Amino acid sequence: MNVLTNISLLNNFNKFCLRLFRNLRTAPTETSFTNRSHLCGELRSHNAGENVTLCGWLQFHRLNGAFIVLRDWCGSVQLILPKNIIEEYKSLPLESVLEVKGTVSLRPQGLENKKMATGDIEVNVSELKLLNMCMSSLPFEVQSFNQVKESLRIKHRYLELRLPHLQQVLRLRSKFVMSVRDYLANKNGFVEVETPTLFRRTPGGAREFVVPTHTPGKFYSLPQSPQQFKQLLMVGALDRYFQIARCYRDEGTKPDRQPEFTQIDLEMSFVDQEGVISLIEDMLQEAWPEECGPITLPFPRLNYHEVITSYGVDKPDLRFQWKILHLKPEHFDSVQGIFQKYLTSEGLTLQVLRIPEGAKHLSNKEVEEIKTASSLKVADDSVKVFQCKIKEDGSWSSGLSRHLDDTSRCRINSLSGAEPGDLLIFAGGPKFNPHLILGQIRLNTANLLESKGIKVREDGFQFLWVDNFPLFLPKENGGEGLESAHHPFTAPHSEDLNHLYSKPELVRGQHYDLVLNGNEIGGGSIRIHDSKLQRYILSDILKEDISELEHLLFALDCGAPPHGGIALGLDRLIAIMCKKDSIRDVIAFPKIMGGKDPLSDSPASISQADMDYYHLKLKTQDGHSE
Amino acid sequence: MNVLTNISLLNNFNKFCLRLFRNLRTAPTETSFTNRSHLCGELRSHNAGENVTLCGWLQFHRLNGAFIVLRDWCGSVQLILPKNIIEEYKSLPLESVLEVKGTVSLRPQGLENKKMATGDIEVNVSELKLLNMCMSSLPFEVQSFNQVKESLRIKHRYLELRLPHLQQVLRLRSKFVMSVRDYLANKNGFVEVETPTLFRRTPGGAREFVVPTHTPGKFYSLPQSPQQFKQLLMVGALDRYFQIARCYRDEGTKPDRQPEFTQIDLEMSFVDQEGVISLIEDMLQEAWPEECGPITLPFPRLNYHEVITSYGVDKPDLRFQWKILHLKPEHFDSVQGIFQKYLTSEGLTLQVLRIPEGAKHLSNKEVEEIKTASSLKVADDSVKVFQCKIKEDGSWSSGLSRHLDDTSRCRINSLSGAEPGDLLIFAGGPKFNPHLILGQIRLNTANLLESKGIKVREDGFQFLWVDNFPLFLPKENGGEGLESAHHPFTAPHSEDLNHLYSKPELVRGQHYDLVLNGNEIGGGSIRIHDSKLQRYILSDILKEDISELEHLLFALDCGAPPHGGIALGLDRLIAIMCKKDSIRDVIAFPKIMGGKDPLSDSPASISQADMDYYHLKLKTQDGHSE
Repeated sequence: MNVLTNISLLNNFNKFCLRLFRNLRTAPTETSFTNRSHLCGELRSHNAGENVTLCGWLQFHRLNGAFIVLRDWCGSVQLILPKNIIEEYKSLPLESVLEVKGTVSLRPQGLENKKMATGDIEVNVSELKLLNMCMSSLPFEVQSFNQVKESLRIKHRYLELRLPHLQQVLRLRSKFVMSVRDYLANKNGFVEVETPTLFRRTPGGAREFVVPTHTPGKFYSLPQSPQQFKQLLMVGALDRYFQIARCYRDEGTKPDRQPEFTQIDLEMSFVDQEGVISLIEDMLQEAWPEECGPITLPFPRLNYHEVITSYGVDKPDLRFQWKILHLKPEHFDSVQGIFQKYLTSEGLTLQVLRIPEGAKHLSNKEVEEIKTASSLKVADDSVKVFQCKIKEDGSWSSGLSRHLDDTSRCRINSLSGAEPGDLLIFAGGPKFNPHLILGQIRLNTANLLESKGIKVREDGFQFLWVDNFPLFLPKENGGEGLESAHHPFTAPHSEDLNHLYSKPELVRGQHYDLVLNGNEIGGGSIRIHDSKLQRYILSDILKEDISELEHLLFALDCGAPPHGGIALGLDRLIAIMCKKDSIRDVIAFPKIMGGKDPLSDSPASISQADMDYYHLKLKTQDGHSE
Repeated sequence: MNVLTNISLLNNFNKFCLRLFRNLRTAPTETSFTNRSHLCGELRSHNAGENVTLCGWLQFHRLNGAFIVLRDWCGSVQLILPKNIIEEYKSLPLESVLEVKGTVSLRPQGLENKKMATGDIEVNVSELKLLNMCMSSLPFEVQSFNQVKESLRIKHRYLELRLPHLQQVLRLRSKFVMSVRDYLANKNGFVEVETPTLFRRTPGGAREFVVPTHTPGKFYSLPQSPQQFKQLLMVGALDRYFQIARCYRDEGTKPDRQPEFTQIDLEMSFVDQEGVISLIEDMLQEAWPEECGPITLPFPRLNYHEVITSYGVDKPDLRFQWKILHLKPEHFDSVQGIFQKYLTSEGLTLQVLRIPEGAKHLSNKEVEEIKTASSLKVADDSVKVFQCKIKEDGSWSSGLSRHLDDTSRCRINSLSGAEPGDLLIFAGGPKFNPHLILGQIRLNTANLLESKGIKVREDGFQFLWVDNFPLFLPKENGGEGLESAHHPFTAPHSEDLNHLYSKPELVRGQHYDLVLNGNEIGGGSIRIHDSKLQRYILSDILKEDISELEHLLFALDCGAPPHGGIALGLDRLIAIMCKKDSIRDVIAFPKIMGGKDPLSDSPASISQADMDYYHLKLKTQDGHSE
């Protein structure tokens, strides 16, 4: 009886598990709702004997047309044409579209093609239908796209899209975003809310595109992010919002920027910085595509001061460990000449960066070029940069050694870890300027070495959180006063509130940036939920015209919960994930320099009727209307 | 041994199933990554004894402040304050934000509140923190929002968002879209691709917003749909594309239209009309929220000619069965007067619509008003409308009966199913004009009857596919020539290709509309994949300037697969699903009439510097520049 009960239980469990499995089975049916039975690229030896219907593009002819290779997004397969139609199709242009019916058979032994996923089989065609003939001379050959100028590739993007590299990227992007949604919506109670893109200008920040309306002189703006809406949703008790949000910035001339781009945008109520950071780490680990390799949690965290002093940049690439070293008077027994000034003068500092094997691999000319390029990038001529190579005996191959004693030189070698063949680069100047230049040199040198085939960076994904940014910075254009380091809605650090009304430049913000392999891929903050504080920062510190933000200030007064969030740049994240240099490689229809779209030739002129409808006239160069 | 094996197997299965369950468990943790332990609305008697941390809004005070009710999106719960803080918080403004710690206890027997989901318990507060104080007099009381003017509600949308009706709609919308994505991406191999919204004008169709750029005289357009991109993706072998796509139309003055709206947009290669229709039916059934009630498959299908002749409209509301009846000469033994003309003259027709119980419930004045309103809506004075009430003995209570014999009258009663108390409405005129007016009368009468509490429509969701539309229609503005009934990329019906070059007005398109409860909620078609055919239709039939579409025509020549798709209007679909009258009720931040956003007061003026940057000047009324 006991046995029987157990067996019966076992059977029940068995059935139950099968049922569970059936529900779990999510084998995508990529050919559902069509006449296709299979995709070209999925056929294998176990399909031998099956009748199949395939659709795809003619990739090439073989053996005078007796064989053809048919390709779809999933792969390609060899077809054997019946003798009576070979003549008809042998000169059909490549990239023509076909539908075939046929039977899968194993290739004769020894004739398998191991380089082809479907190379064990071929399809004996019984019926072939020409669905669409391709022109005989395409703008470029689909297989040799990489020899083609980018603007031409983007003009005919639909051809490049047929290739595996873009197919894979776009499919991976779609899957990753789906996993992010699943994590947020299904597992953590987030609500996806679509917020308007026809909105009102947000003061501060990037230039926003404007959209004229039929009401004379009235324009919408295309928002640079859903920042205001997500805060209003929190005031509206939505509690947890996310959106894969389209954002807009009119900065057409910057390289590798797109006028429209996509953010994973989210906001939570009753959360602190720790909560947002943990959520994002957990989300990325859950959604990270297996095929891209692993990521490890928790991500390291450094504060703004640490990254600037150690790496000379607020988004350090931690795939290599080179660190900037602060040289202090106590490191030297005696100094003269060039060192003296930076070690003893008020407000000046001296920093050194060790380039491992830099002396071995870099010529003097190359080092000078890097110095010049790096100084130009930082646009600072108050900093003096000088270098030495470390010789076999540890001595320095430059006049520098004349300016200090041997003990000090050995101490610097030892502090920086310098070994024979290394390069030491010194930078002296006011405040953090030497760091910023050495930060540039660090990156440029690593790039140059890697372009010579010398491995500097580790493989994989090096995430980093940077926090404790200053809340305000001196105005970038050099004017009087302060501007927000990120945006005016960032809450001050609670420990620094006492400085807000006296020395706002000392206040840190509750802001956190997510850095991946030296790229800023996200930024977020805990927001101000107190209207009086928000009003003070906007009008007294930032001197902004608050009339543009009265609606938000009023909302904060209506019972705004404490809240915070983050936005991740999806395009950049996917580009790094897929090891692409440019975000244009992970966008289906990107624009090129200057915001131009070579595909449709936009932006374009519009009709006089449209101009009239929007009550607009063009202003000519000399300021008069046309 | 056998027993042991089985038991061991059983144990393994047991563990295995537990593991499966753990993986399957997707209980949303809506409080993850915060200090909150529970949501206010989720506490039940089984939580008694637990220590909880809750956050929410002060909904009201009771018993002079000894009790307060705290609310979050999920519901509300009663809190008992410790005596020593009652005084401090008793006059705290409603809608202030609090965090409380406390212990759940069962309410004393007899004091349970059965109307409240959490009415069996209350929370004894040990700690209370005021997170943000609300202003003492809100623009409107959150609980009595429905007495407030819509523009005021939308100006302070964040207050209305706190209420269950909007919370439920936005959460249901998010879940529904997630299910649609799951169905398409995970179960049917669709790839979600984000297509640009800064694009080039598409000829024909609605007015598109323009976006000025820094290049003088050059504008982007905000597309009314991703139509061109989805076709280009098919040319690019993406195979199956979808997107929850933001679309734009500048038609600010139409009621219940939004300048930006959302489409479920999809496209498939190698598919026919049947495939797209089956996919959408299956998708809607899979994703339809259980709480909205069931839908039944397959949806009925009618062709364009049938719906126009039977219901006088191309999107009939089939929740009620009233049908228009075509009266022919053979239905009459003899006719005179008013009937004669429509029955005997070339090109004129006579139609009748029976309004069940119309005579019983509608006054003559009401019928006249409906006739006038319906004729105005169709704007056609070539049609004569007249009516009669059916008396107890079947005779007609109007002078109409003088114009025909009793046998014919009885035959019409019988054909139309008219019974005593019904109303018959006749319309005579050229071609389909009588149908169109009766179609309007049908809807207006049903609405009037329902406003009087007489049930006309069945409950539930009545889907309908309408197909076999004409491919072209006479120009709407009355000009010479034809325009596309839908859009110029719709493929002609294969059976009608012979007419294309001679009588294009006879050609049907491979277009299908999805109708739900009398609203068009989607439209799609099989597209033209042959560039010569597309070129002929654009330039020879539609007389469009094809220079705007050369990129698409070129792409079709590069090996375009046969393809088709559909777009569903998400806002309208959700509104019907949630039984809302307006799409504004299912959009987080809608605009009101004229495209105005009362929340941010946009559209707004922009600065002279922005005007200069875009090389624009305003044109004044008299045509001169300001």
